[in-house]
Amino acid sequence: MPAISGVKLATAAAGIRYAERTDVLLALFEPGTTVAGVFTRSKCPSAPVEWCRAHLKTGTARALVVNSGNANAFTGKSGRDACKFTAQIAARAVSCKPGDVFLASTGVIGEPLKAQAFDGVMDGLVAQAQAGDFLAAARAIMTTDTFPKVATATAKIGKTTVTINGIAKGAGMIAPDMATMLAFVFTDAAISAAALQALLKEGVADTFNAVTIDGDTSTSDTLMMFATGKAGISLIARAADPRLKDFKKALHAVLANLSEQVARDGEGARKLVEIVVEGAVSKASARRIAMSIANSPLVKTAIAGEDANWGRVVMAVGKAGEPADRDRLSIWFGGIRVAYKGARDPGYDEASVSAAMKRPEIRLKVALGLGKGRDRVLTCDLTKEYVAINGDYRS
Amino acid sequence: MPAISGVKLATAAAGIRYAERTDVLLALFEPGTTVAGVFTRSKCPSAPVEWCRAHLKTGTARALVVNSGNANAFTGKSGRDACKFTAQIAARAVSCKPGDVFLASTGVIGEPLKAQAFDGVMDGLVAQAQAGDFLAAARAIMTTDTFPKVATATAKIGKTTVTINGIAKGAGMIAPDMATMLAFVFTDAAISAAALQALLKEGVADTFNAVTIDGDTSTSDTLMMFATGKAGISLIARAADPRLKDFKKALHAVLANLSEQVARDGEGARKLVEIVVEGAVSKASARRIAMSIANSPLVKTAIAGEDANWGRVVMAVGKAGEPADRDRLSIWFGGIRVAYKGARDPGYDEASVSAAMKRPEIRLKVALGLGKGRDRVLTCDLTKEYVAINGDYRS
Repeated sequence: MPAISGVKLATAAAGIRYAERTDVLLALFEPGTTVAGVFTRSKCPSAPVEWCRAHLKTGTARALVVNSGNANAFTGKSGRDACKFTAQIAARAVSCKPGDVFLASTGVIGEPLKAQAFDGVMDGLVAQAQAGDFLAAARAIMTTDTFPKVATATAKIGKTTVTINGIAKGAGMIAPDMATMLAFVFTDAAISAAALQALLKEGVADTFNAVTIDGDTSTSDTLMMFATGKAGISLIARAADPRLKDFKKALHAVLANLSEQVARDGEGARKLVEIVVEGAVSKASARRIAMSIANSPLVKTAIAGEDANWGRVVMAVGKAGEPADRDRLSIWFGGIRVAYKGARDPGYDEASVSAAMKRPEIRLKVALGLGKGRDRVLTCDLTKEYVAINGDYRS
Repeated sequence: MPAISGVKLATAAAGIRYAERTDVLLALFEPGTTVAGVFTRSKCPSAPVEWCRAHLKTGTARALVVNSGNANAFTGKSGRDACKFTAQIAARAVSCKPGDVFLASTGVIGEPLKAQAFDGVMDGLVAQAQAGDFLAAARAIMTTDTFPKVATATAKIGKTTVTINGIAKGAGMIAPDMATMLAFVFTDAAISAAALQALLKEGVADTFNAVTIDGDTSTSDTLMMFATGKAGISLIARAADPRLKDFKKALHAVLANLSEQVARDGEGARKLVEIVVEGAVSKASARRIAMSIANSPLVKTAIAGEDANWGRVVMAVGKAGEPADRDRLSIWFGGIRVAYKGARDPGYDEASVSAAMKRPEIRLKVALGLGKGRDRVLTCDLTKEYVAINGDYRS
C-alpha cells in the first residue's frame, strides 16, 4: 500500500476489549482535507454515527479515531459523552477543533465505552503517526474479521497521478444501507466536500450497498472518505467535472474491491456468492430479487451444503414481491443451467453441477424473462460456524 | 382427537420419497361440505396451490389429497398435469367432480412429482377411509417435522356443540403470508363457503401469519378449512352472525395452537421465542418491528447461545424502518428488564438474566414508548442444526 500525501497513521493497544492486539487507529490529516460520509440507515444509530453526521456539515477533517471492541451503540448519554470526550482529547493533541475529529467504533453493542482508555494513548498516537502503514491500520479496526482489508488504485487527474487507498472491516451484521461496519478511503486528490459526498454516494450504490451477509443492518455502518488535496492539483469543486472520469473509475475499483473482501470474509463463510438477476422489469426490481435470494437462509445453507437447490432460489424469487413469472424462470449455478422456463433443465447433469458447487466462488444467475433490468449482489454461504460465532460472541 | 361427523381419513405409503412411512393422506367429505383456503403470497406458487385457488370458487369439497416428500413446485407443465391426474383418479374413486378434489404437496421443490404413485393406492385409500385418526393424518404429511401437529376444540352454536379439528405440518420455510407449509382444519358446523373464508382470513392474522422460522416464504403454504355441516345445525351464511361468537374463539384457539406447534418445531430449534412489541405507533408497525427481530439471524443465534444480547435487538428495531427512538427503548428477556431508555438497565444482573435465557421458552419484550401499537409474533432460535438440516436436505 503506497502512502497518501497528507495522511499519517498510528495504531495502539488501548485494551478496550481485546488483549494483546491493537484496537485504536488514529489518522491525521493536513489542514484543508475535505471529508464525506455515508452511514447506516438504522433508526437506532450508534453515538459515533450521530457525531459524524453532525460534524460532516463543515466538510473539513483533521483527524479520525476508530476503535474496535466496543461499538458505543445503545449506550445513551454515556455514549454521547464518550464521543465528546474522545474528540476533545484528540483535538487537544492535534491542535484542532473537536468538530474536525471524526469517530467510529465497532464491536459489542450496548456496553458503555470507556473512552478514558483513549486518554492514555492519544499523545503517543499523535507523536508516532507517520505516512502510511495502511495494513496495520486495517488490522487495528478488525473484530471478527479473519483478515485485514485494504485496497489501492491510482487515477489521472489531468497530468497528475493521484492515489486512492481504502481500508475496511466487517464480517457480520452486513446488509445494504450500509454494507460494512466500517470503511475509510483516503486520497491525495483535491476535491470539494460536496463533490466528494456525491462521488461517495454514487460509488457505494453498486459496491457496499450491493453486499449482504445476513440481512442485518448495523447501528454503526460507516463509510468515510478523506481528500487531502496534497497531490498538487487545483481543487475540483463539482462531481460532474470531466477531469474526474478516471478518478471515479478508480474509486469504484477500490470500493468494489473492499466490499468484495467484506463478503468473502462473512462470518463463518466458506464461499463467496455472486448473485446476478437479469430480465427483471427494472434494475431496482432486479436488486430486490437478488437481495431476497442473497438473504434467504435456505438458499445460503444449500450453498454451504454444496447443493444446487434451485427450488429454494425459486422460493426466494417468489417471496421478493417483485414481478416474476415462474414459467419463464431460468437458473444457473456456476455457469451451468439447472432450470429452464420454470422446470428442471432437460440437460440437467447432477455430477457436473455438484463439481461446480464445490468451488470457493459460486455464481448464481437468475433470468426472469420479463424485461431488461439487471443487477448483481455479493453474499456468502450460511454455515454452522456463523451460528457458532454469533451464538457465543458476547460471552 | 375426536371424530368429525362427515369426515373420513385414510393414509398410505406411496413411496413418493420416503421409505417405510406413510406419505399420502386422503380426507373424504360428505356432500354439502363447504371449503375455504388461504395460500402463500409467493409469486411462484406450487402447482397444487394454483389448483386449489382455481377450484375454491365453487365453495364445495368432496376430497383432499395431500402428499409429503415432493412439493410439486417449479415443475412446469408436468406439475399441472400431476395435479390434474391426481384429482381425476381421486374423483373417479370418490365419484365426484375433479374440481371438488383439493390438493396439497410438501417436500422438495423442483423435482417432478410422479403422480402415478397415487394410482396404486387411491382405491385402497377410499375403501379404508374412516372417521378419524387425525394423528395418523398429521403423521402422513410430515417432512422435517419432529412431531405430528394436531389440535381440537369445541364450540357452542346455539345449543349444539360443534367440533373443530386441525392438523398441520411445517418446520422450515415458515414466514408470514402463510406461516406454515400445510394446515387443514375440519369442523362439523354448517357454515357457508363465503363465511368460512372470512373466518379463516380473520383467524390467520394473529396466528399463522404471526409465526416465522427463517423469513423464507414457501411456494406451497396452504391452510384450508372444511365444514361438513353434519352437526345438525342450520346453515350459517354470514361470518358476522352472532351465533358464531363461540365458534370464532374456538377456531382461533385451534389455529393458535397449531401455529405455536409449528414455531416450536422450527428446524433445529431448541427454544420457542415469543416476541412482544408494545408502544409502537400502530399495531402494523409493532408487527413489522416484531418480525424484524424474529427474522434477524443475529438475534436468533444469540438466543441459541443463551445470550441476552439486547444490542442485537436494538439493531433489529433500527433496521425495521419503522418509527423508533433509541433513547426511549426498553427491552426485557424472560420478564427481566435488561435495557431501559436506550441504555443498559441500571439494575442489570447477568446471573439472573443468564438463568432466564436457559429456559426452553423465551419471551422477548420491547417497549418503544411512542404510542399504543402492540403485537406479538412467535419464532425460534437459529442453531447449527438448522444449518445441518438445510445444508443437507436434498441430497
